[in-house]
Amino acid sequence: MPDGLRIDLARLRADLEALGRIGRNPDTGGLDRVSFSDADMEGRRHVQGLMEEAGLETSMDGAGNLSGRWNVGKGPVVMLGSHLDTVPDGGMLDGALGVLAALEAVRTMKEAGLAPACPIEVIATSEEEGRFGGMFGAQALAGTVTPEWLETARDDGGTRLADAMRAQGMDPRKALDAKRPEGSIAAFLELHIEQGPVLEQTGKPAGIVTGISGVFNWTIRLTGEANHSGTTPMDMRRDAFQGLADFARQIPELIAESGSNVSRLTIGKVSLEPDFPHTVPGRAEFTLVARDIDEAVMQALADGARRRIAEVAARHRLDHEIVETSWLPPFPCDGSVIATLQAAARSLGLDAPLMPSGAGHDTQVLGAIAPAGLIFVPSVAGISHAPGEFTEWKDIEAGANLMLHGAMRLAGL
Amino acid sequence: MPDGLRIDLARLRADLEALGRIGRNPDTGGLDRVSFSDADMEGRRHVQGLMEEAGLETSMDGAGNLSGRWNVGKGPVVMLGSHLDTVPDGGMLDGALGVLAALEAVRTMKEAGLAPACPIEVIATSEEEGRFGGMFGAQALAGTVTPEWLETARDDGGTRLADAMRAQGMDPRKALDAKRPEGSIAAFLELHIEQGPVLEQTGKPAGIVTGISGVFNWTIRLTGEANHSGTTPMDMRRDAFQGLADFARQIPELIAESGSNVSRLTIGKVSLEPDFPHTVPGRAEFTLVARDIDEAVMQALADGARRRIAEVAARHRLDHEIVETSWLPPFPCDGSVIATLQAAARSLGLDAPLMPSGAGHDTQVLGAIAPAGLIFVPSVAGISHAPGEFTEWKDIEAGANLMLHGAMRLAGL
Repeated sequence: MPDGLRIDLARLRADLEALGRIGRNPDTGGLDRVSFSDADMEGRRHVQGLMEEAGLETSMDGAGNLSGRWNVGKGPVVMLGSHLDTVPDGGMLDGALGVLAALEAVRTMKEAGLAPACPIEVIATSEEEGRFGGMFGAQALAGTVTPEWLETARDDGGTRLADAMRAQGMDPRKALDAKRPEGSIAAFLELHIEQGPVLEQTGKPAGIVTGISGVFNWTIRLTGEANHSGTTPMDMRRDAFQGLADFARQIPELIAESGSNVSRLTIGKVSLEPDFPHTVPGRAEFTLVARDIDEAVMQALADGARRRIAEVAARHRLDHEIVETSWLPPFPCDGSVIATLQAAARSLGLDAPLMPSGAGHDTQVLGAIAPAGLIFVPSVAGISHAPGEFTEWKDIEAGANLMLHGAMRLAGL
Repeated sequence: MPDGLRIDLARLRADLEALGRIGRNPDTGGLDRVSFSDADMEGRRHVQGLMEEAGLETSMDGAGNLSGRWNVGKGPVVMLGSHLDTVPDGGMLDGALGVLAALEAVRTMKEAGLAPACPIEVIATSEEEGRFGGMFGAQALAGTVTPEWLETARDDGGTRLADAMRAQGMDPRKALDAKRPEGSIAAFLELHIEQGPVLEQTGKPAGIVTGISGVFNWTIRLTGEANHSGTTPMDMRRDAFQGLADFARQIPELIAESGSNVSRLTIGKVSLEPDFPHTVPGRAEFTLVARDIDEAVMQALADGARRRIAEVAARHRLDHEIVETSWLPPFPCDGSVIATLQAAARSLGLDAPLMPSGAGHDTQVLGAIAPAGLIFVPSVAGISHAPGEFTEWKDIEAGANLMLHGAMRLAGL
């Protein structure tokens, strides 16, 4: 195995910067390649050109997934990639890095004259970011897109997914044909920016993801009584906001009691009624979003939160209601893929710690049909989904080399 | 002194119910006699008729204050009354009770053939509730209405005070002539519903108000950093809402440390940015309204709140800003009027405890030009400014008799 092989950072950087000019908003410096927009399709055609220059066999499936296949070896493919669409006014690296680093890894192997044991496919998925719900391309590959989704999905502006696809000359019904046959993917590997501050703050060039956190979403309503703030003594109040504050300040205790060091609980949205300075709040509605990598820990957090909300409601004489709007279990990355990436990191002398992902990625969808792994590189200041998204080039180089050597090992090199 | 004299509850009740049909919303049962509306003026004319039936000399001043004067004795008047306007969809007692109980007290004295040492005037003030800022009639009597106010005041719908007055055939400039000569009012007495739960919950028929709480209004902004709730570990967050919750839960401690048993601190209005379930709040803006009857206590509460907000901001790595939008000092009721009311209560065998008022009343404005006192009767469930506003008739009777006997003592009977 050619341990000394390395990707060409200058070439990868040039590819990233060229793609980063497609859909660029000159005012903000951000990228607008939202899924199935003209700029998204232009980006796909541009990357298709790069794949062809590299001698790959390219195609686009009915869901808009762009594929560049190195037909070598035999059997199921090793699939490498990420998504090409962006959020509105997003960054240059979210998604694009994983596609172009995969292409660079394949180019590096080809130029070194390597002969993988199996085909290697670079994939650029469609509609990961959620204009129409998200991870659409990956779900099409996994066979979990439904005709209902195709019929009913709309973006925030009311545009139907089906119409957005037709406007790009696509037949939305063909998305159902994008499903890959069972057993046709030997492994899937994705390189992505962390979109959080952990790697940068701990000074690591890359991370190997152990899994993607599960998440539950609650809407909680506390109901007391709206009263005149001047005439109602403190001990006669049923102040819904005081109930909320009493619960919110217990979150660190709740995590210490029932959580883990990767538990994340957030109250992100709050609305009071009547929401008037001189009136004791009669009603507080708020969200609780909780994540952990272990579903048993999620359950313990949910149990603890239910108990504490009930206690707070009793203490402040409030009625309470908890509505669970979603419960997504954690996705564990494949143990053998993780071990392969760790071995690759060791061979590169790279300090790439194991870490969870708090955000969702194509990996978790493709993980349903293939052993899947995910590599992170640092996000400077944790910024993502914004024009200021950035990763140091040396870290991009480290992450791309880890993808190269991980892929080589998965492809029997 | 005729200790056995009592008001006629049946007559007072009939008066209250008749006035309560003017401006009544048949759908809600609430009253809409907002100031200078047709219904407000109809209510005033109706009460003017009752005053004339009682043999009082009536007039309306340039600010819309209705006066019914019993020209008896000599020297400065003892003035009794409250306001006749209501909030939108308000109750039948807020204001009206004080006017009609004053009239009933005068009728009772007249019918008993008493001869007060000084004239007694029943006053029905205008625009107390705040359509154009509030306590307009009382301020006109006290001489604190300014030409600027007359020119610039508008209601929420943009209607100018001056135009609303003109539409009722009034000349707004004449409001400046409503000022009473210095020394012309010997004392002012107001009966009002408590608009809070204290008397009802402690089982008292009436209360003697020691003063009206001072109040300060703050707007507080905490600024941290908006981050992805999944990718940002708990210990790397600058969560503005956690800062707010940490301060809010300290309010009981703050009152225990620096406040009194009548301190009232309220966080009534909260807004977060971005206010999205999956994003750590980067900004929290909220109001703090604090009241106490002692300005030194208000100052101690303000100092304590400033210190705690600074501590919370430091603990959660937030920037903080406090904007004081108003600081109104407490108004102390007149000590000799309080003593007179206590003596009257004793003579009636009435358990009427001393208590502060957390809401503002005409009393505090007229207190600037005359010794002033305020009597409360219970509000069932503390409800006010709503159709469900109600006081037990036996408590109305007790409060009206306390006003009668207080007025008698003030008028040398």
